[in-house]
Amino acid sequence: MAMVCLSDFEAYAKKYLPKIAWDYFAAGADDCTTRDENILAYKRIRFRPRMLRDVSVMDIRTKILGSEISFPVGIAPTGFHQLAWPDGEKSTARAARAMNTCYIASTYSTCTLEEISAAAPGGLRWFQLYIHRNRAASQQLVQRAEALGFQGLVLTADLPYTGKRRDDVRNGFRLPPHMKVKNLERAFEVCKMSPSFHSLRWHYGLPPNSLDPSVTWNDIYWLRSLTRLPIIIKGILTREDAELAVRHGVQGIIVSNHGGRQLDEGPATIDALVEVVEAVRGRVEVYVDGGIRKGSDVLKALALGAKCVFIGRPALWGLAYKGEEGLQDVLRILQDEFRLSMALAG
Amino acid sequence: MAMVCLSDFEAYAKKYLPKIAWDYFAAGADDCTTRDENILAYKRIRFRPRMLRDVSVMDIRTKILGSEISFPVGIAPTGFHQLAWPDGEKSTARAARAMNTCYIASTYSTCTLEEISAAAPGGLRWFQLYIHRNRAASQQLVQRAEALGFQGLVLTADLPYTGKRRDDVRNGFRLPPHMKVKNLERAFEVCKMSPSFHSLRWHYGLPPNSLDPSVTWNDIYWLRSLTRLPIIIKGILTREDAELAVRHGVQGIIVSNHGGRQLDEGPATIDALVEVVEAVRGRVEVYVDGGIRKGSDVLKALALGAKCVFIGRPALWGLAYKGEEGLQDVLRILQDEFRLSMALAG
Amino acid sequence: MAMVCLSDFEAYAKKYLPKIAWDYFAAGADDCTTRDENILAYKRIRFRPRMLRDVSVMDIRTKILGSEISFPVGIAPTGFHQLAWPDGEKSTARAARAMNTCYIASTYSTCTLEEISAAAPGGLRWFQLYIHRNRAASQQLVQRAEALGFQGLVLTADLPYTGKRRDDVRNGFRLPPHMKVKNLERAFEVCKMSPSFHSLRWHYGLPPNSLDPSVTWNDIYWLRSLTRLPIIIKGILTREDAELAVRHGVQGIIVSNHGGRQLDEGPATIDALVEVVEAVRGRVEVYVDGGIRKGSDVLKALALGAKCVFIGRPALWGLAYKGEEGLQDVLRILQDEFRLSMALAG
Amino acid sequence: MAMVCLSDFEAYAKKYLPKIAWDYFAAGADDCTTRDENILAYKRIRFRPRMLRDVSVMDIRTKILGSEISFPVGIAPTGFHQLAWPDGEKSTARAARAMNTCYIASTYSTCTLEEISAAAPGGLRWFQLYIHRNRAASQQLVQRAEALGFQGLVLTADLPYTGKRRDDVRNGFRLPPHMKVKNLERAFEVCKMSPSFHSLRWHYGLPPNSLDPSVTWNDIYWLRSLTRLPIIIKGILTREDAELAVRHGVQGIIVSNHGGRQLDEGPATIDALVEVVEAVRGRVEVYVDGGIRKGSDVLKALALGAKCVFIGRPALWGLAYKGEEGLQDVLRILQDEFRLSMALAG
Repeated sequence: MAMVCLSDFEAYAKKYLPKIAWDYFAAGADDCTTRDENILAYKRIRFRPRMLRDVSVMDIRTKILGSEISFPVGIAPTGFHQLAWPDGEKSTARAARAMNTCYIASTYSTCTLEEISAAAPGGLRWFQLYIHRNRAASQQLVQRAEALGFQGLVLTADLPYTGKRRDDVRNGFRLPPHMKVKNLERAFEVCKMSPSFHSLRWHYGLPPNSLDPSVTWNDIYWLRSLTRLPIIIKGILTREDAELAVRHGVQGIIVSNHGGRQLDEGPATIDALVEVVEAVRGRVEVYVDGGIRKGSDVLKALALGAKCVFIGRPALWGLAYKGEEGLQDVLRILQDEFRLSMALAG
Repeated sequence: MAMVCLSDFEAYAKKYLPKIAWDYFAAGADDCTTRDENILAYKRIRFRPRMLRDVSVMDIRTKILGSEISFPVGIAPTGFHQLAWPDGEKSTARAARAMNTCYIASTYSTCTLEEISAAAPGGLRWFQLYIHRNRAASQQLVQRAEALGFQGLVLTADLPYTGKRRDDVRNGFRLPPHMKVKNLERAFEVCKMSPSFHSLRWHYGLPPNSLDPSVTWNDIYWLRSLTRLPIIIKGILTREDAELAVRHGVQGIIVSNHGGRQLDEGPATIDALVEVVEAVRGRVEVYVDGGIRKGSDVLKALALGAKCVFIGRPALWGLAYKGEEGLQDVLRILQDEFRLSMALAG
Repeated sequence: MAMVCLSDFEAYAKKYLPKIAWDYFAAGADDCTTRDENILAYKRIRFRPRMLRDVSVMDIRTKILGSEISFPVGIAPTGFHQLAWPDGEKSTARAARAMNTCYIASTYSTCTLEEISAAAPGGLRWFQLYIHRNRAASQQLVQRAEALGFQGLVLTADLPYTGKRRDDVRNGFRLPPHMKVKNLERAFEVCKMSPSFHSLRWHYGLPPNSLDPSVTWNDIYWLRSLTRLPIIIKGILTREDAELAVRHGVQGIIVSNHGGRQLDEGPATIDALVEVVEAVRGRVEVYVDGGIRKGSDVLKALALGAKCVFIGRPALWGLAYKGEEGLQDVLRILQDEFRLSMALAG
Repeated sequence: MAMVCLSDFEAYAKKYLPKIAWDYFAAGADDCTTRDENILAYKRIRFRPRMLRDVSVMDIRTKILGSEISFPVGIAPTGFHQLAWPDGEKSTARAARAMNTCYIASTYSTCTLEEISAAAPGGLRWFQLYIHRNRAASQQLVQRAEALGFQGLVLTADLPYTGKRRDDVRNGFRLPPHMKVKNLERAFEVCKMSPSFHSLRWHYGLPPNSLDPSVTWNDIYWLRSLTRLPIIIKGILTREDAELAVRHGVQGIIVSNHGGRQLDEGPATIDALVEVVEAVRGRVEVYVDGGIRKGSDVLKALALGAKCVFIGRPALWGLAYKGEEGLQDVLRILQDEFRLSMALAG
């Protein structure tokens, strides 16, 4: 089977991954409306192609927070890469470095930050953080990441509680016994069990309710006190929150709805991008994730003000196909399509 | 089979209820456009989720006409609960009390008001009234309800005649012989048979045309003279009627299109809610029913000005699943989803 | 099988009519877009239902050009009723009289005007006219109709040539040998064969191109000179043509697109009705046909300014079901649904 | 099987062409959104039909750049006609001449310009040009075309690189060995291989990257210096480029998105036509291709300002059906439908 576009990787992953893993990666909250809207919204945006421009030479490199990447597509933070490929996040790190782009490693990795670093020394990486009730655990993570050379800290703002993903509940999704949320091992001995929502008991091998739902904007100051890394906030969807983010001193904003896995029936990210970019007025860099399936989607996001996009599920499909090599294929296809779209749009 | 969301209960009911009962509960008028629009209209409404607010503690209790309920979802009046579960409305009453919410018992119950009261003493209940040509029968019902401790009188305004529900006509729907519209037994000896519409002869074991199609706003004054209960009017869909309702002294308005079972191709209730809330300007409480399928729907209705929502068919699905227990499951899922939506929407 | 709504008659006709006859009745021009739009456009119109009005007594009679009919639904002119039922237009005339409504007999009837008249003496009937190249034939028809007591002359304006109905071309549609366009027998001996469109050769047993494509507004004056009958023009879709119709002295306008059988991708009739009514400003009566499938459609058309609607295909389905009796069933269902819609809409 | 409308020819071609050839002709870029939009956009445009005009005589001839054609539909440039019919472009030339219309021969013909000319002497033909890196090859082509009596030079502006047509990549599409891009044989010995896009290696038997992506508006002047033929630019979709085209002295503009084969998710051509016509203000002739499937589409394009339309895929379907004769059938059906639409629209 020829792998011609990202949908081919999706079809492959759906066919070959264990159902429970596929369902977990594919899941959206509730009716999956927002998950699907992320994609549909791109299709509603139309180009106005211009002709007869010299497109024989195109430079598609860009810089994010001062670091150059080979083209404006990075790897969004997603959890549990070992569900897709035995080497897990180590393969992801290698593929990102090979393609000279940025990889945002998730708190919920199945490899430790140390393993990820060692797998691809010198690669550009940011670390994605959830703030736990056990603040000491979070602090330790941030400091480990900084010490390991991660160059940005991505705070996920849209997960005070985990969204309701019906298939995960039906499947009773949990990590298989041989996989672990390795970065958090031994961090939660002191964490008391809190009563969880009646019908929403799933927690991926973590203590239930270990995330702290009382996090507010002031906790940005706390994070700032822990690290010299630039702080990027992920999960902003409104101009009001974009303004708050800038005022609280973040260096970057990722417009994101967590792949449609948290609150269903909010805006598509590409639609939200427009108002966020407008509110930010260039004061910090703005990125977007969710719904990127073609190189022309990248071009649309950039045309609407994003500095760079991040891909979530497509990266996992690439891993599921052939690990490091499969993810490189995905990135390379996006790169080719992006360059071609630029040329054809003039 | 895991019961994860309300659609699971719907699928269960469709599978296990006798076809004629399922069809009766599911029926919409004519092409079922309005029935389906009630649901689709919710999906067109988008959240603007806000981040980094402290959502560790949320109070979801509310008060309707002064009575506290555990969360803003009550049971709308629907008929013939014994079609769904042998204990009928007695189970409904117990589940509502267990979940500490309000149950609006229908005139067309298959248990008497006395049986309903006795099944769950102390529960918050309103009584739904149709005005019959035999006014004495209606008066008697109101006074029985008040004497039994019902705390509100809900006048249904949208049923001068029964809507045309094609499947019921095809099925020749009637109550099975062992079920009765018990509240009205012996009330109609004196009611003369009137000529009915040629193609619309169905009457559920009641004399045809026993409902009074000449009821007008002035009959609110007549009702007022019969009882000290607050009067809530159900079936309002326009600002003009909302204004009339307030002027005629009702205490509450339920925006409703009878689940799409009366006039087809009117507005979805969540759309009508907006203009009713605007017209009412806080002078009386406004509620809405129709199309609630997820906790986030409840949040949308509240955000648009409803004080509380009522569920019709989902309550019947819960009954059909496991009687009192099944209805509690439905309410609990809605409660959890509602709380989660509030947290994720900030 | 219970006949509950008009779609049931459609399903019956589709199942039991010969394919070639069904295709002929069902046909729309080209892609059938306008044929289907006629129906879809009704569904886009929403009621604003009002409550608590005394709807115990409703008078649904109306007058068209001074003649009372039992409710505002007449029979639109359609051809070849013997394809649907052996007695053809005689059954149609009887059913219309039985229901006390108006029947517009088509030039392309398979019974003579004399047979139609004799079948239901005293019924309210109008005669629909195509103007042929052989003007003497048309003149003769008008004068026969007037002499037979027809009370209106309906000039079809939208058929200078027959629209392209693909299935008719594929089927090589022609009247079976035992049926004839009886009103025109012997009228065309003198009519020369003209060259027809290459790919559009079908003519229903008439000489090809016997219709006159050079008819203009001035021919209304010619018609006026032939008869004292009121002239109703059928096929108007724009305000400009509505103004011309009034200025040329017609007594009525039927907003029609010939059931979507002529120019495809023009407006739905219910949409066109609005601008025609606005342009006419009450100077003549305005009617509409096309897309009426439920009593609530009739109510919508009246609410938008039509004095009466006419049904085409549904009448044929009724005939196909049980001749005169089947057509009465169709009319009675529409009548009941119309009355119920009025009651429920307040 | 009766060939009644263009879709019949499409169905025939899909059934009888080798899959790889069908796929090549049918292909759109990426998700084929623009390819399909070209058609859907026509369906969104509605006529306002006028009645009672004398439509007995209609003149459908027109002139393009001074040459009369029998009706405003020409043959757009498409490649590789031998894939559809053994005689290839020779049949196309003969059919166009027989129908007295214009045929734009493609650079990528499988017959030489000389063969095309000899097949149908005296026919009205334009020559479509891609500019190659090897400018001498392009110059030679232009001069051969002029010498052979071609009367217009059509410069394609939207193909600096070939769009990504997934099926062609999957199929590894190449011309079969016995077919050649004959006009370019021996032109490319000196052309160096340039690195091509990783995942986009297909080149139809030409050296990869032989097209020159550095072409700009100034190259119009270069073309002008080579020939006295009028220059028509093909691929314009915006008012800005239309203005540039006029300023650079072209004689005509073909609004085109290359049948949706280049940049996906740009505008439908009939939508772009409106803004181009507005910008051009009559200074040069404007044509349109893409999505024409019925005679009424031609009428819409003309009503929106096009002087003439060109058909691409439908011409290939006609060839695939019966070569020269099949293409004439296609043109004749369009002609009949166009004339009928004009009559019915008044």
